[in-house]
Amino acid sequence: MYAQKPRARDLGIQFEGITGKYNAITDVKGVSVGHSTIISGNGKNELGKGPIRTGVTAIFPSGKKKKPLYANWYSLNGNGEMTGTTWITESGFLETPIMLTNTFSVGKVRQATLKWMVDSSWSKEDWWWAFPVVAETYDGFLNDIYGFQIQEKNVLEAINNTTTNKVEEGNVGGGTGMMSFGFKGGIGTSSRVLKFPDTTYTVGVLVQSNFGDKRRFRIDGVPIGKELKDTLNPKYKAPPKSRRKNGDGSIIVVVATDVPLLPYQLKRISKRVPIGIGKLGGIGANGSGDIFIAFSTANQEAYIREGKTTVETVSNDWMNDIFDATIQAVEEAIINAMVSAETMEGINGNKVYALPHDKLIELMKKYNRIK
Amino acid sequence: MYAQKPRARDLGIQFEGITGKYNAITDVKGVSVGHSTIISGNGKNELGKGPIRTGVTAIFPSGKKKKPLYANWYSLNGNGEMTGTTWITESGFLETPIMLTNTFSVGKVRQATLKWMVDSSWSKEDWWWAFPVVAETYDGFLNDIYGFQIQEKNVLEAINNTTTNKVEEGNVGGGTGMMSFGFKGGIGTSSRVLKFPDTTYTVGVLVQSNFGDKRRFRIDGVPIGKELKDTLNPKYKAPPKSRRKNGDGSIIVVVATDVPLLPYQLKRISKRVPIGIGKLGGIGANGSGDIFIAFSTANQEAYIREGKTTVETVSNDWMNDIFDATIQAVEEAIINAMVSAETMEGINGNKVYALPHDKLIELMKKYNRIK
Amino acid sequence: MYAQKPRARDLGIQFEGITGKYNAITDVKGVSVGHSTIISGNGKNELGKGPIRTGVTAIFPSGKKKKPLYANWYSLNGNGEMTGTTWITESGFLETPIMLTNTFSVGKVRQATLKWMVDSSWSKEDWWWAFPVVAETYDGFLNDIYGFQIQEKNVLEAINNTTTNKVEEGNVGGGTGMMSFGFKGGIGTSSRVLKFPDTTYTVGVLVQSNFGDKRRFRIDGVPIGKELKDTLNPKYKAPPKSRRKNGDGSIIVVVATDVPLLPYQLKRISKRVPIGIGKLGGIGANGSGDIFIAFSTANQEAYIREGKTTVETVSNDWMNDIFDATIQAVEEAIINAMVSAETMEGINGNKVYALPHDKLIELMKKYNRIK
Amino acid sequence: MYAQKPRARDLGIQFEGITGKYNAITDVKGVSVGHSTIISGNGKNELGKGPIRTGVTAIFPSGKKKKPLYANWYSLNGNGEMTGTTWITESGFLETPIMLTNTFSVGKVRQATLKWMVDSSWSKEDWWWAFPVVAETYDGFLNDIYGFQIQEKNVLEAINNTTTNKVEEGNVGGGTGMMSFGFKGGIGTSSRVLKFPDTTYTVGVLVQSNFGDKRRFRIDGVPIGKELKDTLNPKYKAPPKSRRKNGDGSIIVVVATDVPLLPYQLKRISKRVPIGIGKLGGIGANGSGDIFIAFSTANQEAYIREGKTTVETVSNDWMNDIFDATIQAVEEAIINAMVSAETMEGINGNKVYALPHDKLIELMKKYNRIK
Repeated sequence: MYAQKPRARDLGIQFEGITGKYNAITDVKGVSVGHSTIISGNGKNELGKGPIRTGVTAIFPSGKKKKPLYANWYSLNGNGEMTGTTWITESGFLETPIMLTNTFSVGKVRQATLKWMVDSSWSKEDWWWAFPVVAETYDGFLNDIYGFQIQEKNVLEAINNTTTNKVEEGNVGGGTGMMSFGFKGGIGTSSRVLKFPDTTYTVGVLVQSNFGDKRRFRIDGVPIGKELKDTLNPKYKAPPKSRRKNGDGSIIVVVATDVPLLPYQLKRISKRVPIGIGKLGGIGANGSGDIFIAFSTANQEAYIREGKTTVETVSNDWMNDIFDATIQAVEEAIINAMVSAETMEGINGNKVYALPHDKLIELMKKYNRIK
Repeated sequence: MYAQKPRARDLGIQFEGITGKYNAITDVKGVSVGHSTIISGNGKNELGKGPIRTGVTAIFPSGKKKKPLYANWYSLNGNGEMTGTTWITESGFLETPIMLTNTFSVGKVRQATLKWMVDSSWSKEDWWWAFPVVAETYDGFLNDIYGFQIQEKNVLEAINNTTTNKVEEGNVGGGTGMMSFGFKGGIGTSSRVLKFPDTTYTVGVLVQSNFGDKRRFRIDGVPIGKELKDTLNPKYKAPPKSRRKNGDGSIIVVVATDVPLLPYQLKRISKRVPIGIGKLGGIGANGSGDIFIAFSTANQEAYIREGKTTVETVSNDWMNDIFDATIQAVEEAIINAMVSAETMEGINGNKVYALPHDKLIELMKKYNRIK
Repeated sequence: MYAQKPRARDLGIQFEGITGKYNAITDVKGVSVGHSTIISGNGKNELGKGPIRTGVTAIFPSGKKKKPLYANWYSLNGNGEMTGTTWITESGFLETPIMLTNTFSVGKVRQATLKWMVDSSWSKEDWWWAFPVVAETYDGFLNDIYGFQIQEKNVLEAINNTTTNKVEEGNVGGGTGMMSFGFKGGIGTSSRVLKFPDTTYTVGVLVQSNFGDKRRFRIDGVPIGKELKDTLNPKYKAPPKSRRKNGDGSIIVVVATDVPLLPYQLKRISKRVPIGIGKLGGIGANGSGDIFIAFSTANQEAYIREGKTTVETVSNDWMNDIFDATIQAVEEAIINAMVSAETMEGINGNKVYALPHDKLIELMKKYNRIK
Repeated sequence: MYAQKPRARDLGIQFEGITGKYNAITDVKGVSVGHSTIISGNGKNELGKGPIRTGVTAIFPSGKKKKPLYANWYSLNGNGEMTGTTWITESGFLETPIMLTNTFSVGKVRQATLKWMVDSSWSKEDWWWAFPVVAETYDGFLNDIYGFQIQEKNVLEAINNTTTNKVEEGNVGGGTGMMSFGFKGGIGTSSRVLKFPDTTYTVGVLVQSNFGDKRRFRIDGVPIGKELKDTLNPKYKAPPKSRRKNGDGSIIVVVATDVPLLPYQLKRISKRVPIGIGKLGGIGANGSGDIFIAFSTANQEAYIREGKTTVETVSNDWMNDIFDATIQAVEEAIINAMVSAETMEGINGNKVYALPHDKLIELMKKYNRIK
């Protein structure tokens, strides 16, 4: 069903670079993604009763057994939470799945993930530390966020739902109740394939997109946000004003690659994410939690408890192509999230409209970006 | 009761600097501390059943109403978790209480703290972000840590128990099941009063101390750890070997001050904490989560949602005395945690002995550090 | 003379935001800029003899007397040098002028600047530290860079030439021999005026632009670089291939503002510079030294050697407008550098062509960006 | 001659760990060190005429051919300069020698080092970036520092003097005019040998020590500074008061090792240096430039311009021993600098006394630290 939602390229929007098979983070071999989506109730928000428009997304870097991978992270604007980052910085390794949810459910998701790790066959060793990576964006415009609606079962569902194939986008998982640039946002993904001499590598990106001021929204330089403002009709009306600032919101970006990068090289990757966001009109707004994590699925045996080992790395001179791929995939993943998302009504009748496909195409043509 | 536990100075150990009234973090006006301690059961560990040796400690920087204060943080070795730090770095402000607990209960404590914030009169504004600061150390040697024993009621108890007076030390709150340098550790605190022309300032420190290899343990240069090794008898025997490395463990340090420091100056403070730890024999071991947060109770009106305001700051040339005070108070707080803590038996009969006061005094005399 | 060079707006290119009087960094009151330009010789490069195409640019944040100002910095890609940054991070203050030159003359410029500070009436105090901020980009494609051609007199000339009025752009000062996106680059500047209730603030930017791969060059989304590639004729031909990677080069960005920002807020500003760069096609390439410094001319009395003082700061919620202004001014300053720069032939007959104004206008029209 | 100066161990001071052959940074195979010492003139300081008490120290990580090595750095207190660090952070590599000199000669030494790199057979490639690492401490109490006395020939002399054998300590090279804890300081070095299963590694440290307040000076916990204050006689008198704060000064620390560490692991090493400094009484004082660089001589082929390569790394669990070794060697290197340094009279009759060996031994005995 979800596979039939259109994506940005289906509308004719042009992107640079070559995508992988699914144009998704799962094009990086071994990466799997699962969602748990909770949509229930309508009408006035009663704390703890709903309506509910939220969920959990689980990203496993390398299957369901503990397999620490080199990783690093960067925060463009830290009005958000991503747990577990301090140990990534220190050790160089990501040792847990990456979980995405809403702002107020980080604690629940962290605990349920840890419990799953203890209960499952995740690790046989006598491990005694574990710092799950749980990140969030705010869905309180549509969801009973202060009702703490995520339960342990939702976390387990997201974990059990993981697939290495197509990734559902839009109003699913952690992205269920999210919005971007004044339109409906959510989960989006994209990938790029890089051809080097004798080698092909993949960069995959997944976003939980909940950021952006409509006035700043551009695709390929075309001022979509401003133009749609000029053509407002009920179908495209902006969401009711909240006391939040315009442009508030957040975006979590996960970058996966099979290029054998060391932790410092993955830091470099994560620092390029803002450029992809910026091209669409993101500024790392004060109210935005724009936090990015990048990991490499290469060097699967890098993590050892004793002794010496060898790992692979690539020339720093090769980084430019990986930077390009990252920036391109971030941009496309965000647009995919918006194109795939559908209009949603949530708490108190708050409604967020989907980006209108027909208008979008029209505008891209007006500026000579689609023939 | 707890007030009657001896502290390091009671044993005759010498420290530099002048302490505040309670020689505690609560000597910084407005700071309050509360514990919830859970001790129950004996014998073999059954997951989720116990025995339990754990707890929660709550530190409120400035009362029970939201009052963002300038803060910053530093990680000597990031094998640990302190949530909420990304927003502190970005915004300059600490906007929540600081909660201390065990490694596996960070999620539960985060959620319960957030729920308390929503339910209580913490903030009247339509706030839509909130990133509670929750930090942890590992008590799995004594506690059923994988049983996730902390409940919402424990979090509320710690919050409700807060006092601006004497602070209980040793086997209490988040420190209940902790150990240091091979002996029993836990919560410790200390303070320093700084006299500047026309002004008196206070620096207060609270630690949850769970770090340190016995072989490296020194007080004032005296090799306590090695000397006690040479005089081992059942009373002082080291804990049974686990698969953890020697010296593993963690220490969370909270530094409070009424010196009007800006966020970058508080970063400088937090970067001096390792020197206090290092004097006792800490090295920021690989298995250690040594994470430090510092805040200033001055500039209570710095946080505004609109416009311009004035804040106070002090000359960078004044920092040296504050560095000294921080280093001294960190050192004393750790020793206080160890001196106050009592021998504890936990899961599976694991036993951690208290630092023997008589032997300690004897050794300090041997090296001419106590007359 | 230089005032007659066209700037981006003169060609009809559209930008957002309101500029200050000069559309220059000098619109921030107190900021002055001076250039020393060295152009001499033609033909084959002989080390130490020329031809020379280089220079020095001096930026004084607040006149010719020592007046430390709050500042901070960020590196998107650190293949470059900006001296003096460690003390800025630590102290929060910029205590010296900012000097821009070529990669191999950083040492000479640092020493000559220090000597000027010692010899002039810069500071009357018994100062004993001084860490001049000297940044660089590489002009070795046109200039005898390995000949170390900058002399003390050039540094003094740049210092003596400073003005608080119009700023010369293009092939001047440190920007003399620079190139951008395959065309001639150099010095560029721009400003934005921000209207807040009861207050007007200014953000000014100056760039030494020497970065960018032609294939990625876009203005307002229009693929200038690719389009010009398709219409190549001798007039627009790309520079001869060197062994440098495509897209190598660097950009130094100086952001000045009179908004009273604290050091951590200035860090936030400097972290938004990559978004302005990225919109034009920058990726923080591996061979690029993309280093940015931001300072506030407010709080002129913040620096004290003893005691306590008050300083101003603005609400973090106001940062969005300042982020916007920074991103816009960075973008425009880079385009100004390219539009103002003229075709230059340097060592070994290497030639870098100016961005062709007529073609640029034509392309912007093709994509409906200029009417 | 210098070889006959006593070192800390010669006086009977006890240290932990096993040293290498020379107890010097040169125990790490491939590392070489050279000094150029300038001592001339007496009496009143005339700018540019003297008296001169300064110099340059050159450290080559791996011979006189360009051989980039993994490196990283940390600043405890950034009141100092170490050029070239931005590229180390970004690329992971140290690509140049490390040069130590006085605060005002960083520019000259940078330029002369670059010129040597261009003129010598350092690199055959068409390199176009080069960011020499030049660090400094302030010798203006004894030296005509504002006279800019270091010349290109001194830089070349230091480079030409390098040896892989014994390293001269005390009043030599960049350390010539330096002071520590109120006594004469300068260059010091030490090493530790680490035995792992099947492998032996070495950690070597070199310091240019110019930091520390006499009142805080301790060795092994023994309050040397305070005790000597009580026994002041002309022979041990403190230097005349300058307008500098007590405890101002700086220390540059270079850590070399043949353990195959990745850049993030070398960051971890550099962050432990403050613990060694802190044990002696350092606090990272506000006026101190305490900047540390660590590099690994393993992975000599890690730096490639194209493609993929393999590098070695060790288990993070092995880091503790390397942390210990670093802390121990830092501590001993500083004491070596002080024990080796001799009383020096400089400009204006300013005199800095050597640490009195007899008194030092007496005090260590009093506190039962030497039998």
